[in-house]
Amino acid sequence: VRLRDTSEGELLARIFPIYAGSGHVDEGSVPVGPGDDAAVVGAPGGSVVATTDSMVRGLDWRDDWSSPHDVGVKLAAQNLADIAAMGAEPTALLVSLAADPDLEVAWAVDLARGIASLASRAGAPVVGGDLSGAPAGVVVVSVTALGDLRGRAPVLRSGARPGDVVAVCGSLGRSGGGLALLHRGEGARGAAVWDEPGCSDGDGSGPDAGSSRSAAVRALVTYHRAPVPPWQAGPRAAASGAHALIDVSDGLVTDLTRIARASGVGVDLDAAVLRERFAAGPLTVALGEHEAWHQVLTGGEEHSLVGAFADEVSLPQDPDHPWVVIGRVLAAGPDGPRVTVDGVVPDHARGWDHFAR
Amino acid sequence: VRLRDTSEGELLARIFPIYAGSGHVDEGSVPVGPGDDAAVVGAPGGSVVATTDSMVRGLDWRDDWSSPHDVGVKLAAQNLADIAAMGAEPTALLVSLAADPDLEVAWAVDLARGIASLASRAGAPVVGGDLSGAPAGVVVVSVTALGDLRGRAPVLRSGARPGDVVAVCGSLGRSGGGLALLHRGEGARGAAVWDEPGCSDGDGSGPDAGSSRSAAVRALVTYHRAPVPPWQAGPRAAASGAHALIDVSDGLVTDLTRIARASGVGVDLDAAVLRERFAAGPLTVALGEHEAWHQVLTGGEEHSLVGAFADEVSLPQDPDHPWVVIGRVLAAGPDGPRVTVDGVVPDHARGWDHFAR
Repeated sequence: VRLRDTSEGELLARIFPIYAGSGHVDEGSVPVGPGDDAAVVGAPGGSVVATTDSMVRGLDWRDDWSSPHDVGVKLAAQNLADIAAMGAEPTALLVSLAADPDLEVAWAVDLARGIASLASRAGAPVVGGDLSGAPAGVVVVSVTALGDLRGRAPVLRSGARPGDVVAVCGSLGRSGGGLALLHRGEGARGAAVWDEPGCSDGDGSGPDAGSSRSAAVRALVTYHRAPVPPWQAGPRAAASGAHALIDVSDGLVTDLTRIARASGVGVDLDAAVLRERFAAGPLTVALGEHEAWHQVLTGGEEHSLVGAFADEVSLPQDPDHPWVVIGRVLAAGPDGPRVTVDGVVPDHARGWDHFAR
Repeated sequence: VRLRDTSEGELLARIFPIYAGSGHVDEGSVPVGPGDDAAVVGAPGGSVVATTDSMVRGLDWRDDWSSPHDVGVKLAAQNLADIAAMGAEPTALLVSLAADPDLEVAWAVDLARGIASLASRAGAPVVGGDLSGAPAGVVVVSVTALGDLRGRAPVLRSGARPGDVVAVCGSLGRSGGGLALLHRGEGARGAAVWDEPGCSDGDGSGPDAGSSRSAAVRALVTYHRAPVPPWQAGPRAAASGAHALIDVSDGLVTDLTRIARASGVGVDLDAAVLRERFAAGPLTVALGEHEAWHQVLTGGEEHSLVGAFADEVSLPQDPDHPWVVIGRVLAAGPDGPRVTVDGVVPDHARGWDHFAR
């Protein structure tokens, strides 16, 4: 059954219950959910954090690599990571789908399930959205995430100070590594027994994770398809007094360069720590040492959090979402704000541009 | 110059100043504007109203009928109307653009200007957004609008009570009438000297408005291309104690049926008032009496506000945005909640479905 065979009302009647299961709509946190002209979401801190991100079929995902559930998880994850990177707790999501009427209804329903699964885990129900037609073959999904700071100040990119430690919560390079593997024909859907859609198989750093290359490939590709970044760590970092935060969306060096520029500082990363704690394990097993290192520095769409803290002592102590110190904030040198690794500018720090593909 | 010839950073450097002019980013209303992971917007009422709407090239607009400025105005307007229909004041907009890299940069810039022009008038600055590539020929624009209730309860669709008066603020049928004219080749861009883009030429109800058919055609087509609905009237209606509100997005009868169903009531409209106050004038001059009447009842994308109030006395008294009583709320009859005109179910009340074109 395709979208054109159903009415908008019928489709909404299928999707609303999925989103209704994504969180608790009540007088407190979501006074008005989907179905009226707009939603009403609690903003107890007196302000709202808001961000939006889109994914486009054929550019941001390939149907032979990603299920609609994966797409939903990934789009929700990247929005949740942006909320977390302000130090805020997610409170609600809104979803827009513009789709070719020939799209299968099942696709749209599975997309909703993917979004709802992360919405539910994050405590940020889907409260509204929009459906549009689109030209043949086109599917564009946009999510807006809202969050609340609980009265705290937002953690900006501009707050890093010389002497701060730089720390990461979450993985590095896995999404980029997974994408590289998919591009060379490894790890495609159906090529292995997958875990339940949308459930990443953990951080893969357990004792057995590196024991088999296929397990390593699977870990990376799974993370690329449906990353589950540690958005819970954002508000905890804020509460611990983080000076600056960003999520790794375009690559560690690129995103830390944003912090460096906004803060007017330099950042020097510790190659030994990055190699040992992030490049080793599945990344190296699947890709070899050289490419693993490249992905750690430049891999995008990871949506882990990286930030600057006054010192090691002020890092949040959370066994579920540990922070790893990977470098230090320096005064900007004569070359201005920039990121170095062991004092040297990495030669493969290239950004990601949406129009220059 | 096309998007593919510029970098994302260069494009943002052109668009940010346009959006920066769309409102005041300061500690109070918008503590954090564009450029960080997410924006932070004031929510003084302790909750946030949120809605999202998209427009797709070729489906929601045609490039030979609408300028990018028009598209921006229209998309902002429909989102602002949804905020207003909850009784809220708009506080901020977020914008996503997914576009073919062959799109002219000038198009994207003019789109931003259109959105910014309404954002500025509404006091709801553009605080964030997203840029994506898209397949050849594709342009999808999504806007999310945020609003604040100033501590008031939201005005829902479900609050209409038997005995209420039903009133409209704004025009009816003009957007639908304009679209009908464009479909038959009248009023296309360049066919006349247009007003400044994005500025509707008022409500056209002045003494000269109906004096010339070309002026009437222009008024309707202009309103279709770039409606400027009375979003200011929403919070004022809420403050006056409106029982229910909706904006006319799919046609008067269709949208009032939503109020009727949500409230469990009937609505009976007064044909004489509707004909005299809404069908007469430019609509009838341009389209003739029969089609003018059809457009008044079924024309979509008008984004005027319609609501239920306890009585005439409780209508907001605002000379800039007058409310016109067009009917009355009844107890639902044996046929359930429905909308009638002079007691009769209109025969051409057809909804608008995004996938059944």
